[in-house]
Amino acid sequence: MILDRSQVPQQFIDLFLNTIGLTDEEFELALKHFWREFIPKKFFYLKAGQICRQIAFLTKGCSRSFTTDEKGGEHILFFAFEDWIIGDMESIQTGKPGVLNIQAMEDCELMCIQKADMDKLENQLPKIKEWHIAKQQRALHVALRRLSEVKSLTPEERYNDLIIKYPQIFQRVPLQYIAMYLDIEPQSLSRLRKRICGK
Amino acid sequence: MILDRSQVPQQFIDLFLNTIGLTDEEFELALKHFWREFIPKKFFYLKAGQICRQIAFLTKGCSRSFTTDEKGGEHILFFAFEDWIIGDMESIQTGKPGVLNIQAMEDCELMCIQKADMDKLENQLPKIKEWHIAKQQRALHVALRRLSEVKSLTPEERYNDLIIKYPQIFQRVPLQYIAMYLDIEPQSLSRLRKRICGK
Repeated sequence: MILDRSQVPQQFIDLFLNTIGLTDEEFELALKHFWREFIPKKFFYLKAGQICRQIAFLTKGCSRSFTTDEKGGEHILFFAFEDWIIGDMESIQTGKPGVLNIQAMEDCELMCIQKADMDKLENQLPKIKEWHIAKQQRALHVALRRLSEVKSLTPEERYNDLIIKYPQIFQRVPLQYIAMYLDIEPQSLSRLRKRICGK
Repeated sequence: MILDRSQVPQQFIDLFLNTIGLTDEEFELALKHFWREFIPKKFFYLKAGQICRQIAFLTKGCSRSFTTDEKGGEHILFFAFEDWIIGDMESIQTGKPGVLNIQAMEDCELMCIQKADMDKLENQLPKIKEWHIAKQQRALHVALRRLSEVKSLTPEERYNDLIIKYPQIFQRVPLQYIAMYLDIEPQSLSRLRKRICGK
């Protein structure tokens, strides 16, 4: 069923009309390919081993993307908030099963499109393609920065970076997951917070 | 000075004619924007704080990309070998000073192009643009996999992955840098190699 504009989050409309610069007619054309998904808190949007065939714009909520090791340990690569695109990028591109798990940390609302439809749309509307390329370049920068951060910063420096980037994160994500993202024990994170906030 | 084809490495010609699919005339047009650079072993192609304005195709040799922490510790994000593109991708895109150091691990040969010329070329020759977008997507996948690996694999698993990906690495890169890449002490890497090779 084609979405009515009243069902579409305002920031998604703003993204396409203002940031990407589509006309109203072009936006209506694009919108035909999108559907809404709701992922309740703690539910999974994606599990490792699945093929990720769709691109999802996170319009509300927060998710965590993580991998697991052989012992079942979980390793958070990213949190995503409003205006992020979520998915297993490699699986989307290659059509092969992915390695990422994506779980809702809050009730999440997504605007989704099939990869194949996104490709068609990008050919029809080059403005979308240009925007998507720029978005992927920024994703590369974010991934490289995160890698550099994981390799070279101390837990305290990583903590400081995190609260600068996402000041609201402690209101939105349970401490245990933030500790997992920072690669420290929850108790150490609590102590770190007390020490820094108590300064 | 415009390069003569005899000065251009064969795999660079193959990349443009076979992989990207340019005609001879299109390749001649593209080639006008490229120049060669030679970086002797141990010299730096790029230092943190510099603005990276060019895209470099590594046609021979091997480099390491690393960041430094406040105490001067070095953290290797990637090694690059033949057919990689090297540079500080975020600095190239934003025009701001970068955070990466790139040092030659062997005598390196590069084919370089100014970012602004690459942009022009991509507009003139859409085949180059398509290829470059796909290359950047693969760079994103590599970065995400490396992040996942750093977060979730044990040193032994990271070691095994590395020698599967780059079987020749111990012949090309000194052990101390491989240890740095794997985030283990050089002595531990020596022990690990003996144990695994002695099996």
